[in-house]
Amino acid sequence: MAGSEEKQSKAKETKAKETKAKEPKAKATSGGKKKEVKKETGLGLSHKKDENFGEWYSEVIVNGEMIEYYDISGCYIIRPWAMSIWETMQSFFDPEIKKMKIQNCYFPLFVSPTVLQKETDHIEGFAPEVAWVTKSGESDLEVPIAIRPTSETVMYPYYSKWIRGHRDLPLKLNQWCNVVRWEFSNPTPFIRSREFLWQEGHTAFATKEEADAEVLDILELYRRIYEEFLAIPVIKGKKSELEKFAGGLYTTSVEAFIPNTGRGVQGATSHCLGQNFSKMFEINFENEKGEKAMVWQNSWAYSTRTIGVMVMVHGDDKGLVLPPKVASVQVIVIPVPYKDADTQGIFDACNATVETLCEAGIRASADLRDNYSPGWKYSHWEMRGVPLRIEIGPKDLANNQVRAVRRDNGAKVDLPRDCLLKKVEELIENIQDSLFNAAKQKRDACIQIVKTWDEFVVAVSQKKLILAPWCDEEEVEKDVKARTKGEMGAAKSLCSPLEQPEMPEGTKCFASGKPATKWTYWGRSY
Amino acid sequence: MAGSEEKQSKAKETKAKETKAKEPKAKATSGGKKKEVKKETGLGLSHKKDENFGEWYSEVIVNGEMIEYYDISGCYIIRPWAMSIWETMQSFFDPEIKKMKIQNCYFPLFVSPTVLQKETDHIEGFAPEVAWVTKSGESDLEVPIAIRPTSETVMYPYYSKWIRGHRDLPLKLNQWCNVVRWEFSNPTPFIRSREFLWQEGHTAFATKEEADAEVLDILELYRRIYEEFLAIPVIKGKKSELEKFAGGLYTTSVEAFIPNTGRGVQGATSHCLGQNFSKMFEINFENEKGEKAMVWQNSWAYSTRTIGVMVMVHGDDKGLVLPPKVASVQVIVIPVPYKDADTQGIFDACNATVETLCEAGIRASADLRDNYSPGWKYSHWEMRGVPLRIEIGPKDLANNQVRAVRRDNGAKVDLPRDCLLKKVEELIENIQDSLFNAAKQKRDACIQIVKTWDEFVVAVSQKKLILAPWCDEEEVEKDVKARTKGEMGAAKSLCSPLEQPEMPEGTKCFASGKPATKWTYWGRSY
Repeated sequence: MAGSEEKQSKAKETKAKETKAKEPKAKATSGGKKKEVKKETGLGLSHKKDENFGEWYSEVIVNGEMIEYYDISGCYIIRPWAMSIWETMQSFFDPEIKKMKIQNCYFPLFVSPTVLQKETDHIEGFAPEVAWVTKSGESDLEVPIAIRPTSETVMYPYYSKWIRGHRDLPLKLNQWCNVVRWEFSNPTPFIRSREFLWQEGHTAFATKEEADAEVLDILELYRRIYEEFLAIPVIKGKKSELEKFAGGLYTTSVEAFIPNTGRGVQGATSHCLGQNFSKMFEINFENEKGEKAMVWQNSWAYSTRTIGVMVMVHGDDKGLVLPPKVASVQVIVIPVPYKDADTQGIFDACNATVETLCEAGIRASADLRDNYSPGWKYSHWEMRGVPLRIEIGPKDLANNQVRAVRRDNGAKVDLPRDCLLKKVEELIENIQDSLFNAAKQKRDACIQIVKTWDEFVVAVSQKKLILAPWCDEEEVEKDVKARTKGEMGAAKSLCSPLEQPEMPEGTKCFASGKPATKWTYWGRSY
Repeated sequence: MAGSEEKQSKAKETKAKETKAKEPKAKATSGGKKKEVKKETGLGLSHKKDENFGEWYSEVIVNGEMIEYYDISGCYIIRPWAMSIWETMQSFFDPEIKKMKIQNCYFPLFVSPTVLQKETDHIEGFAPEVAWVTKSGESDLEVPIAIRPTSETVMYPYYSKWIRGHRDLPLKLNQWCNVVRWEFSNPTPFIRSREFLWQEGHTAFATKEEADAEVLDILELYRRIYEEFLAIPVIKGKKSELEKFAGGLYTTSVEAFIPNTGRGVQGATSHCLGQNFSKMFEINFENEKGEKAMVWQNSWAYSTRTIGVMVMVHGDDKGLVLPPKVASVQVIVIPVPYKDADTQGIFDACNATVETLCEAGIRASADLRDNYSPGWKYSHWEMRGVPLRIEIGPKDLANNQVRAVRRDNGAKVDLPRDCLLKKVEELIENIQDSLFNAAKQKRDACIQIVKTWDEFVVAVSQKKLILAPWCDEEEVEKDVKARTKGEMGAAKSLCSPLEQPEMPEGTKCFASGKPATKWTYWGRSY
């Protein structure tokens, strides 16, 4: 569940100005200094990623046609350029969970208040953000009805009904849907919005062992979404007691990091709910021995937040940078017809190139518009982040070659047309790998191991991703948050990595000086 | 848009008792008379399709595990058995519209009241059913916010922004989402619910010709969903002025018919909106001559209603009957291990059969549970509508054959195991065709051509699907509705078929006696 997303919403103080997306309409702010390319083409960004990250982000998602700001604050239009990325991830994840015998279903958007309030810890986490329907047409409803912020309480009364005996287990359901969390400050498109799209899986097992195993299987799929598709390195880890899902037993997550802002971002979460909800909702079954037992439950989710993290990690001062695996256009082919050149021949070569690539399953397209210059088109498709540009001009035609330009590093190379496909396939694969490696290198450069409080304070001020030995006590984390509270937001635990570095005997907690029990990542976060 | 669905909601009087789904919980009503099979197995239905259609429908969707009734009236849980049918249709329709260069996107669930109310005719149609969010957490919102009943008004302000010149056209977007129409009476799962799933396409063109052509291209896809996937014959036609989409220019639809209740049901609609919305939302563009022009728009939708129509048309007194093309399990394999038989051999044969079929892409599964008898399993999978059952017992094992039993007509046939795959493929294809043909035969038997008012009144009372020559005047339709109003609901026009039968010179309107201009289908409807 992005259930832990709600936790962050309570920590309003952690969100600082530099990460805030400007509303409304980033375009309205683009009157100031402009990059050279902007003067030339009317395209380009007014803000630089390193100088004003928040404004840059707003501008890049709007100019890159991922998002349109909407007239209700905190709600955004997901345009086709972003939607296709969502669909690509879905077409990976959905078959994977089906292999695990998880079935899709659809539960209602609405929850009645009595059911919503059944699990006390859970509702405490969500109550302030719940949107309530109180009227239909001109009439008041008898009872206000809530819009789901997540579906535990929507679903579990029916799990109780459907599960009778051990043969009804495991019960493994998933739904792709929208949820609503009416937060009042600091919305950021994709990262924190009042409505977002996600999948939410809800499973019930006879034993804790099965539940534990599934939590990690799902976490591995989330890692693959980030690392294999979005080319973003993530850390698999366990959340602290303070940061776990409201009402659950323990929470695992994949954590990404945005070097520019020095903030961690919870990428997706896989929770073991233990038997807490099964107790509240009376989800009992008769086990093989004929005894009454309670089920063990998990819930897990990833959301459209993934897309925002991708923009933040890879984007640059020319706009979006899309990893080839999720780009709806992987290769854009642009004719460069100099005066007196064989324009028709060039156009034919462009079309033939697109055809060759598309036949092999590469998502290629040609921009043959006659009312824009090649230069304008370069900027346009750079803004939209297309991984590879192919230019074809008279000289290329004469030499039976094309020119390929990489979006990620600007490298240019001439490709002979007779081995075009193979070369393009290699380039695409290379771009995907390079993006991941570059992101990993930048992320790793931010990781700092600290062992004392003084080192910690310095590292926080330097926007580091901090790895520190910790005593794993809730009071100590509260204390860390209190002591680092400031304009930029408090530091908190991000996760304790599943792969723990060695902990030498006698290592002390960086914050309390008590014996440390685990290595934990700390930092500011979204 | 199932935009025309909203029209029907206003005609509350058209819904009669026999078609109403009983709420809450069909199961609670199953204490009365029971079918023999029910006594034997604990399964089976308490109600017969021909005797009490409404109760039968409620029971079959619950016992068939398509729907669970939810604690908020008019909202239903779509269980995996139904969801997989929705996904199958989606995996046909989505690639088809992508071939037409229609792109997916996602607009917000919420609409601000000023935008919602911009198109007067349109809002008049929807206003009584709009659900309003007025609170978040404990706070009142400054302005109430509507939940989309459909997305014309959500989307078109942005069409106005995005469309500048003729090169921005056509703009063709689609979204898969939930919508909410808070109707206060007579909810019926799938057919009429307060929240439902659909796709809604919204397109804008430079010329009326392009818009007209797309309306019919989409309508053809809707016909294919019904006829090729759901095995339900539909009539393509044009809606009358009274029945068209609120605010549109004209509406086309595919119309299905439920012989048991004698009611038409609007299967899906493809609307040409003309320039009405473009005027209201100022969706202008500069055409090739440099002049300002208004776009021509379409919107079109099909919803989870499709699944309800399928249940109503094909289901029988043993439960659901699923067309193979949309069944998530096409073949269920059941071991029949008589006492002292080679149980392991039979189980192995079952597994081998499933494997053979699955490898060839047939969705097959074995029910090897040891706590249910073969007879119980037969009833169970019949209830769930699996198209083909394969039984394997000792005799089958000895003869190297399996027994196949068709769900649609109960026919049994022994299949040699060495040509099993081919035979099963033939059977599946045959079942799909037979279902369509049987449904068409039943539907056609209900069609009655009438030429006079007296014939019309008799045909209405006999629950016919009436084809009559009509003068196509709005006042005359209003008059027909007024004159047929009664306990069972008024008759109204369903559609004027695109394929018009010959109209002999001098033919008179059945209702007004004026010269007839077209043949139109009439009847009661959902």
